[in-house]
Amino acid sequence: MYYLAVVGASRCDRETAVLAEAVGAEIASRGGVLLCGGGGGVMEAASRGAKNAGGMVIGILPGEERRGNPFLTLALPTGLGEGRNAVLARAADALIAVGGEYGTLSEIALGLKMGKPVIGLHTWQIRPPRPLKEKVMEARTPEEAVEMAWKAISATKEKGN
Amino acid sequence: MYYLAVVGASRCDRETAVLAEAVGAEIASRGGVLLCGGGGGVMEAASRGAKNAGGMVIGILPGEERRGNPFLTLALPTGLGEGRNAVLARAADALIAVGGEYGTLSEIALGLKMGKPVIGLHTWQIRPPRPLKEKVMEARTPEEAVEMAWKAISATKEKGN
Amino acid sequence: MYYLAVVGASRCDRETAVLAEAVGAEIASRGGVLLCGGGGGVMEAASRGAKNAGGMVIGILPGEERRGNPFLTLALPTGLGEGRNAVLARAADALIAVGGEYGTLSEIALGLKMGKPVIGLHTWQIRPPRPLKEKVMEARTPEEAVEMAWKAISATKEKGN
Amino acid sequence: MYYLAVVGASRCDRETAVLAEAVGAEIASRGGVLLCGGGGGVMEAASRGAKNAGGMVIGILPGEERRGNPFLTLALPTGLGEGRNAVLARAADALIAVGGEYGTLSEIALGLKMGKPVIGLHTWQIRPPRPLKEKVMEARTPEEAVEMAWKAISATKEKGN
Repeated sequence: MYYLAVVGASRCDRETAVLAEAVGAEIASRGGVLLCGGGGGVMEAASRGAKNAGGMVIGILPGEERRGNPFLTLALPTGLGEGRNAVLARAADALIAVGGEYGTLSEIALGLKMGKPVIGLHTWQIRPPRPLKEKVMEARTPEEAVEMAWKAISATKEKGN
Repeated sequence: MYYLAVVGASRCDRETAVLAEAVGAEIASRGGVLLCGGGGGVMEAASRGAKNAGGMVIGILPGEERRGNPFLTLALPTGLGEGRNAVLARAADALIAVGGEYGTLSEIALGLKMGKPVIGLHTWQIRPPRPLKEKVMEARTPEEAVEMAWKAISATKEKGN
Repeated sequence: MYYLAVVGASRCDRETAVLAEAVGAEIASRGGVLLCGGGGGVMEAASRGAKNAGGMVIGILPGEERRGNPFLTLALPTGLGEGRNAVLARAADALIAVGGEYGTLSEIALGLKMGKPVIGLHTWQIRPPRPLKEKVMEARTPEEAVEMAWKAISATKEKGN
Repeated sequence: MYYLAVVGASRCDRETAVLAEAVGAEIASRGGVLLCGGGGGVMEAASRGAKNAGGMVIGILPGEERRGNPFLTLALPTGLGEGRNAVLARAADALIAVGGEYGTLSEIALGLKMGKPVIGLHTWQIRPPRPLKEKVMEARTPEEAVEMAWKAISATKEKGN
């Protein structure tokens, strides 16, 4: 089973929500588990997409209360505040960033630091200070984003065996 | 008392180390407390600069052991792995990023997410996906970086009163 | 949906495993979600009981790898080490401690600190230093333990509404 | 340099505060660093004792703000909530529990789980469910508590070499 985190801002415009929902639907249709921060915006749109496609959606919440968007299969409060982002990145096999603000950027960075595949869809442009290989894989469509994540996870798991 | 985090990679070239050391020295000469991840590279250079200038240097370590660079006044293992980055950002009044890799990018992002002033010195170039105001303040010299951090903290604290 | 954490040691004797398995089965038969640390011993026995009864079992792991017992529906590595215990307690509506060692004691204490119902089954005896009300509810059987947790959660949720 | 955590409740009676203050003073007089949760009650009394004896006092705070008792040399907010307790235990060479409520019990348990020496002074009585060796060392006086911690750390460090 593949665990894909969809990361993005808790508020977003309609266009970004459409992308996020399609990402969620595609993950679910392939049988993946969707992890997200459990909030609104991109997180909610992706959750809706996955839930409507019959998928499992896990919200890993920053706060102490079990308050998440209405499309979560499970909502897990951590009480860690921003420390939650590291848990979300760690629990994922790959991350797909859709749009996003600073929290999203932190998740992209944490995912890359942990050696996880990170796919970007209309997300941050980042350029390292030195000849460090910039590893965010840019996708043009939601389907391509999930396909790229899937292939990357599959390649990682084969290496692991 | 001002708490300044210097964030950067655990390995760096000579030029970056010189910058980091000067940042550390400048923080100490102003009576600031230097927070860092406690490791090598930029962290070690900044620690050396601060220690040699008579400053206090706190290393907030990712691992379980009290193993940090030799210039720390105090070394605090957290056992949180990458979760440590959120603690470091939270404990700081402002962050100065010098060079850096993915961990550094996560600290920049977490700092911005938490509303802390973030100053960059030869660090990541980041561009948001939307008309989000990009808030890393770019400095040209170590002294300017610390001056910018100092002013920003001072402005924040006045507002708070 | 109720989230019940079963906490206990990663190694246990046969008698304790039988109790834990029955606790897991009872939680699942009532439609609860079983949370646990995802490891062996009590965690594995409870997971087996819940899984065999058709329930959902979530392992919240301390390490960085997705390595848990074979009865988990979902395995979520946190990378937080012992910091994981606070996440587990926070994510639960109630905790049931079966046997246990020091990690279990920390989860009992964290659960109580967070105001969660904590039920004990052959677990630590604790006595506060002052006239603090000792709040671990002792159960005699696995079924009673789950019943006590269920009632306590139900009472809490009603108050919340 | 030895790092000693003093753990205890954020409110306490006068008698307990007197004990905690003496523990703090004794740690400082031996040149140890005092770590604590940075709050009131036992934490404040121990901090006062250490500060007045010229020692260094580090508060590792659960919240997001730099709000601690007035006797801290450094106040480090973590934003981790109860997750802070694991950081405090991990950062210490040994823990001394004075009085205490549930948070204290969690710190005792986390310290024991991490293999740290834990000394108790009028604190929780705990009894394991099985023939597990109960390892809290009970002291009768503040001076004895610090002496026991000192010896235990010293023994650990020698083994490490």
